[in-house]
Amino acid sequence: MTEIIPHWLQKQADLSPGRLALETPEGTKITFGDLHKAVDIQARKLASLGVLQGSRVAVLSHNSVEMVVLVHALSYIGATLILLNTRLTASEWSFQLQDSEADLLLTAARFEKQAKDTGVALLTIEMLHEQPEKEYTCCTELRLDDVFNIIYTSGTTGNPKGVEHTFGNHWWSAIGSALNLGLSHEDKWLSPLPMFHVGGLSTIFKSAIYGMPLYVTESFDEKIVQTAIIDRGVTIVSVVTVMLQRLLRLQEEDGVTYPEKFRCMLLGGGPAPLHLLEESKARAIPVFQSYGMTETSSQIVTLSPEDSIRKLGSAGKALVPAQLRIMTGTGFAKPEEPGEIQVKGPMITKGYYRNPNATEGAFREGWLATGDVGYTDKDGYLYVLDRRKDLIISGGENIYPAEVEGILTSQPSIKDAAVIGKTDTKWGSVPVAFLVKSADVSVEELQTYCQERLARYKIPKYWHWVDELPRNASNKLMRYKLQQLLDEGSA
Amino acid sequence: MTEIIPHWLQKQADLSPGRLALETPEGTKITFGDLHKAVDIQARKLASLGVLQGSRVAVLSHNSVEMVVLVHALSYIGATLILLNTRLTASEWSFQLQDSEADLLLTAARFEKQAKDTGVALLTIEMLHEQPEKEYTCCTELRLDDVFNIIYTSGTTGNPKGVEHTFGNHWWSAIGSALNLGLSHEDKWLSPLPMFHVGGLSTIFKSAIYGMPLYVTESFDEKIVQTAIIDRGVTIVSVVTVMLQRLLRLQEEDGVTYPEKFRCMLLGGGPAPLHLLEESKARAIPVFQSYGMTETSSQIVTLSPEDSIRKLGSAGKALVPAQLRIMTGTGFAKPEEPGEIQVKGPMITKGYYRNPNATEGAFREGWLATGDVGYTDKDGYLYVLDRRKDLIISGGENIYPAEVEGILTSQPSIKDAAVIGKTDTKWGSVPVAFLVKSADVSVEELQTYCQERLARYKIPKYWHWVDELPRNASNKLMRYKLQQLLDEGSA
Repeated sequence: MTEIIPHWLQKQADLSPGRLALETPEGTKITFGDLHKAVDIQARKLASLGVLQGSRVAVLSHNSVEMVVLVHALSYIGATLILLNTRLTASEWSFQLQDSEADLLLTAARFEKQAKDTGVALLTIEMLHEQPEKEYTCCTELRLDDVFNIIYTSGTTGNPKGVEHTFGNHWWSAIGSALNLGLSHEDKWLSPLPMFHVGGLSTIFKSAIYGMPLYVTESFDEKIVQTAIIDRGVTIVSVVTVMLQRLLRLQEEDGVTYPEKFRCMLLGGGPAPLHLLEESKARAIPVFQSYGMTETSSQIVTLSPEDSIRKLGSAGKALVPAQLRIMTGTGFAKPEEPGEIQVKGPMITKGYYRNPNATEGAFREGWLATGDVGYTDKDGYLYVLDRRKDLIISGGENIYPAEVEGILTSQPSIKDAAVIGKTDTKWGSVPVAFLVKSADVSVEELQTYCQERLARYKIPKYWHWVDELPRNASNKLMRYKLQQLLDEGSA
Repeated sequence: MTEIIPHWLQKQADLSPGRLALETPEGTKITFGDLHKAVDIQARKLASLGVLQGSRVAVLSHNSVEMVVLVHALSYIGATLILLNTRLTASEWSFQLQDSEADLLLTAARFEKQAKDTGVALLTIEMLHEQPEKEYTCCTELRLDDVFNIIYTSGTTGNPKGVEHTFGNHWWSAIGSALNLGLSHEDKWLSPLPMFHVGGLSTIFKSAIYGMPLYVTESFDEKIVQTAIIDRGVTIVSVVTVMLQRLLRLQEEDGVTYPEKFRCMLLGGGPAPLHLLEESKARAIPVFQSYGMTETSSQIVTLSPEDSIRKLGSAGKALVPAQLRIMTGTGFAKPEEPGEIQVKGPMITKGYYRNPNATEGAFREGWLATGDVGYTDKDGYLYVLDRRKDLIISGGENIYPAEVEGILTSQPSIKDAAVIGKTDTKWGSVPVAFLVKSADVSVEELQTYCQERLARYKIPKYWHWVDELPRNASNKLMRYKLQQLLDEGSA
């Protein structure tokens, strides 16, 4: 049966009204009591726009206090939140808005122009402030089985899919993390990760569930993060590899060290190179490597700093409420034997919005089949070998080759296209295109074509013309042959 | 839908095999890895006795490492655990064994003689050790909606009822407590409360869920507890009022103070007198007052030490996943207005074993109607005025007058009987009997009669003969009139 709990923000506002809930580098400080009041007012303004229980509201914004208020306000009303990645193009947003059946798009002013032709009623968050207030029925309880938000993720094939997160998914994710990291009233969490991704979003709920201040930064800036750790009492920071790299470089340049109370650098979004872990160790930065995805509502496997060198390169073990297994084509993998990483636990999505086929395809007897390849060692520690075979992770953002290839082949002069990742010292990996043309077309033309249709980070950084792509008998692209070309330097 | 998590003990044995799980004053130290092994062996021995998934096994034991092992072993097998209060009589045990449909009674050797005529197959825990081992299917997952154990509680009327606790009840109770107290890898919890009560039992699960050592003591001994706090690194102790009192007295006698890392004295089992809280405050003992009952799987309302003087006498606020309301006959009580305390949350039992009437009667639209009377102040803090009107709490044990009265009137010479509580400096309260006789009978005869049928703590300490009991027109006992007699000293 579904469990029912009091609304987590209202609960904290009741238990600890004077405790700090949000803080910004600019000096804004908001208590849980005041946050609740601001959220309630925002809910009234939304109500005056006709947003009510069951409404479907998309949000397009950079990280901000206002975005946190908006997220909570939609849960007060009982509306479903659809989170849009600010880096996408208008046509990508359009797809997600249509697919998620959004009634309304709320956008930060800076994205208004780009987002105005998505076919959905649009209002800037600034305009929302000018709305009158209207009474509404506030959700004082959360049913953990109820879906609260949708975040789109691309797959290896087809269109992006809307991952549904229930309140329970977020609750269990927060609890799993607390059981791993411990819980202290001294904690202050900074996530420079975008809140439209589940890693950033999850910190909003952790703050409310733990009664912990969240340090809100618009985006990643190593100077701001370093200052927050050294001077503002931030004890936990979520990062991806490229951010950790920049933080280490800045630390070195400035000749500073982090205070002892800084207790966790939570590293997600793809494997970290060993030298980075070693450097972190040398600088006494407690790096918790982790593994997770949108479907797992952020991290589901984590490695403690005490194991980071002993188990160098490992992502660790599944959190207390979660399980992990490696499956080969024939059954359970033996230790050290690679196979598909499958995970299970109450923080895992129940499925994709209006996509029963994708949902069914994603699960094996209750286990999420991630498509990622890895193995566990004899002690049960996970080593991720490859994200979904062909997944490219660039600066913490996932790029699905199939999606980029789909756009490339939609260009009339392109007959066939393949995209793979190329190692990059700054971004971890960047996309590379291999193209077969049917008519004359320039790289510049293709770039322009992509810019209208793809987020900037998805656009190939290198372009190669080939006569044909390596395909096997069943016409399946043999990406490893392209990878070989890259590795040999012949492409 | 029910959530499924990995078995909490197996999980800790995997995550932290070398971390300390159990410790005793005698110097026993058992890691999570070794505890898992011991539990697995115990499960094999149980399997050889025919205990299997769905079996119903009663346990009658004082606190011990072996009892912890047994509790976990039954969960490995998937059997239901029925916990018997060691202080009851054989006839009280018989009722609970019959009512719970127990297949087997496992008892510590010291209770064997008393328990041999309960009509259920009996084995001592010592004899269990001599059993051979047999393969069994180990439950590697816990379904949170599954019932794991039954603990009997008496009500205001009728027979004791078997409160069912699901794995989820215990999980949520542990999480609610962690969100309140915080979680640190430095923690070590000592509960001198019996493990056959939910307060003691819950620490077994908290240990496994948090990966935290449990300091196991056979019963309460203030010297052992003080030593554990001062020399053995115990940071959290669960107590009832009489224990806190004795600890304070010993502290004073010995002229010692507790170390700073001792961070929580969790006080349950009835209201604490103000002088005790003030003395604790003066001695810098962080007392967390709490309110809970078997049905709420231990504490559900807690007051933080920082509020203990400001809100003197309050039990605090409902834990993060829980809710509290006060209901009068006509609806919601206003602040300061007394009414029935009702609570809601996922740690609350789903009902009583094979007793749908009692289950239905206990809930109002999903809220547990505790029968206790209290009010909330304007800030929402709970003040418990009276436990279930007539409930007598003596040294942390609940005594239901109806049960004692039932035994008394079953004696052929007793025509009518009433039992109320009398304030007692040592036990908080003790039972007092008011009796109307139909034939000659002595107090000694009645004491002997009671000793065969009632736990010692339930037997009246004072006996008064009256011509008739004060009853109203509908023949309902007017207990307050008896209370007046006591207060006036005329009885």
